[in-house]
Amino acid sequence: MLLARYAAIVGAGQTKFGDHPELSVKELFAEAYREALDSVNKGLNQKEIQAFYVGTLGVGGYQIGNISAALADHVGLNGVATFRVENACASSSFALLSAVQGILSSQYDIVLVAGVEKMRDMSSERAKYWLGVSGDTEYERLAGMTFAGHYAIMATRYIHEYGVDKEYLSMIAVKNHHNGSLNPKAQFQRAVTLEEALNAPSLAYPLNLYDACPTSDGASVVILVKPELAERFTDTPVYISGFGAGSDTLALYEREDLTGLKATRIAAKQAYKMAGIKPNNIDLAEVHDCFTIAEMMAYEDLGFAEKGKGWMLVEDGSTQLSGCIPVNPSGGLKAKGHPIGATGTAQTYEVFHQLRGTAEGPSRRIQEAETGLSHNVGGSGATATVFIYQR
Amino acid sequence: MLLARYAAIVGAGQTKFGDHPELSVKELFAEAYREALDSVNKGLNQKEIQAFYVGTLGVGGYQIGNISAALADHVGLNGVATFRVENACASSSFALLSAVQGILSSQYDIVLVAGVEKMRDMSSERAKYWLGVSGDTEYERLAGMTFAGHYAIMATRYIHEYGVDKEYLSMIAVKNHHNGSLNPKAQFQRAVTLEEALNAPSLAYPLNLYDACPTSDGASVVILVKPELAERFTDTPVYISGFGAGSDTLALYEREDLTGLKATRIAAKQAYKMAGIKPNNIDLAEVHDCFTIAEMMAYEDLGFAEKGKGWMLVEDGSTQLSGCIPVNPSGGLKAKGHPIGATGTAQTYEVFHQLRGTAEGPSRRIQEAETGLSHNVGGSGATATVFIYQR
Repeated sequence: MLLARYAAIVGAGQTKFGDHPELSVKELFAEAYREALDSVNKGLNQKEIQAFYVGTLGVGGYQIGNISAALADHVGLNGVATFRVENACASSSFALLSAVQGILSSQYDIVLVAGVEKMRDMSSERAKYWLGVSGDTEYERLAGMTFAGHYAIMATRYIHEYGVDKEYLSMIAVKNHHNGSLNPKAQFQRAVTLEEALNAPSLAYPLNLYDACPTSDGASVVILVKPELAERFTDTPVYISGFGAGSDTLALYEREDLTGLKATRIAAKQAYKMAGIKPNNIDLAEVHDCFTIAEMMAYEDLGFAEKGKGWMLVEDGSTQLSGCIPVNPSGGLKAKGHPIGATGTAQTYEVFHQLRGTAEGPSRRIQEAETGLSHNVGGSGATATVFIYQR
Repeated sequence: MLLARYAAIVGAGQTKFGDHPELSVKELFAEAYREALDSVNKGLNQKEIQAFYVGTLGVGGYQIGNISAALADHVGLNGVATFRVENACASSSFALLSAVQGILSSQYDIVLVAGVEKMRDMSSERAKYWLGVSGDTEYERLAGMTFAGHYAIMATRYIHEYGVDKEYLSMIAVKNHHNGSLNPKAQFQRAVTLEEALNAPSLAYPLNLYDACPTSDGASVVILVKPELAERFTDTPVYISGFGAGSDTLALYEREDLTGLKATRIAAKQAYKMAGIKPNNIDLAEVHDCFTIAEMMAYEDLGFAEKGKGWMLVEDGSTQLSGCIPVNPSGGLKAKGHPIGATGTAQTYEVFHQLRGTAEGPSRRIQEAETGLSHNVGGSGATATVFIYQR
């Protein structure tokens, strides 16, 4: 089934996620950018790039403002229209959404989109602050709620509501660590056993260390062109066939439901409608698993499982690499890492290479995948995007 | 001459700029939003708003992240697609540009755009840091360059290059203070004499206190719709007929020219081309006068005067309210105030009401104005936008 084509991805790059004490934000970005340019099979003269969108939270005290212009100039794109978009952990997927709209508006033919973050040189107090403000401040953060606390409350409610064992969450960690162990770009390239995952030190009950993603340095880049131009740059473009965005309260206490994210459901509904497909048409997905419970809820909010039945996909292995709907073949935020601003476009990077059959680490390639999805959440669900891709 | 119509403005609001210790960022935004809704003559049900774009630098330590969703939810727009755009002092004009592209992409029909900033509760050290990082960090800020220093270097070069007396810069301050004295929304509603302006305490030679804009609290809001829908909401829409955006190095030492801003010239060229008009077709302009020299350079970069001859517009009074091309009838950043993120959409607010004949403070209304321009700069010229409007 041939889907709609709103924009074409002709190249993508990503640094290894993890510790990069030796690289500045500019250098991280430049490394991902060079890889993206190199991945454009038929070549792209960067003078043709007309606009640059970057998603970054800027938590790392990197002390550079006007960052969109600073990064563009650093790689020789001086002069182009530049935009920084910031929606917490969903920053670069909202940058991507704006970029797609820039193309659809007929203003731009060739656009660069990036995400970048440097978090590993932050104190943990500062990290706690910057992540914490993505949730509600007035009635939750200042009353002592941590970011892990948000998702712990959702996990508690989920477990209570559906009578699910905590073990299912740890099984998601095991799956994503396995996938990460096969991904040379992942921060954690180490498989873990279910026993290790279950017995890790507690973070916020019922979540422990292996239910949480790490802090990371990293950058990712996507090169977008007007669909009609794709073949000029590559024989293997990947098209964006649908997209959506939603929002919700920052505060959990104001939400009707704690076992899913409304912003995700809004975004998914729009994206499926644009693409004209249903969840069972998706061959693989990169979803926002900042905590294991987030991936569980995403199964349901994205329609891969019915409400309250996401744990069944874990039980029967559906979301493993060999399953019918592999989720987070990259290792996800959990194992690949989560450099806040870089996560959205890194999901697109992964889907792009999976659909092309060029994902690094051949053993984690999803064979014959044609249609992919990415799902990125800002904070504890106040903002979310969903993209649908087809090769 | 009927120009192209890319989007229609059907309402706009602005808080008074200045000190608002009693209002949070959310409350400032809500006040401007309510005024914008009220200004839509035929009414607008806010349930019809599909997307929200906000420009803010977030310098004021207001401790709220995921700010686009937080603000949307605060005024009852829970669920819509939300975007925070940040390009230093040009944040909300880049938010506006993204919003126009959202409309042109056929994704949205009705969009809300805002700018907001709370700066007056910051220490001056913190303000210096947040403004400073909008210029180059590695080779200028860390070597001691201040933000006023950037513009002082440009002023020195301008004065040297064109043999102009410093008095012309102070005359711009006098003009903008005069306009501000007639604007109930301005931070400084006080006229100053040329003698006062010339003899103010020095900031960074040759610029003194009256060559600089203040720090401010404030918010501004613009309601945009698809041109075809404008008449449903108002009999007096204002259309966006052209727009452009450019970028440049953050560092001054890397620029070829210190007597103008390349980013402005790129943006202006695009905007005039889209609108199909020339600078002499513009009836009034709101330009980025963070320092008086910035307004002088804008005259030239926007084509109101030839290179090196902007001072002649000051000398002959062309840019005064009664002149042939009134500039900053609102008082500009200089007298109206400069709450960083709020400035771009506040310029649009002013042009909207001027072209409608509804600008507050009747004595500063530009009679029979049909075509307006706004020009917003990020930092010391690393990013810039230009918009052209027609009623």
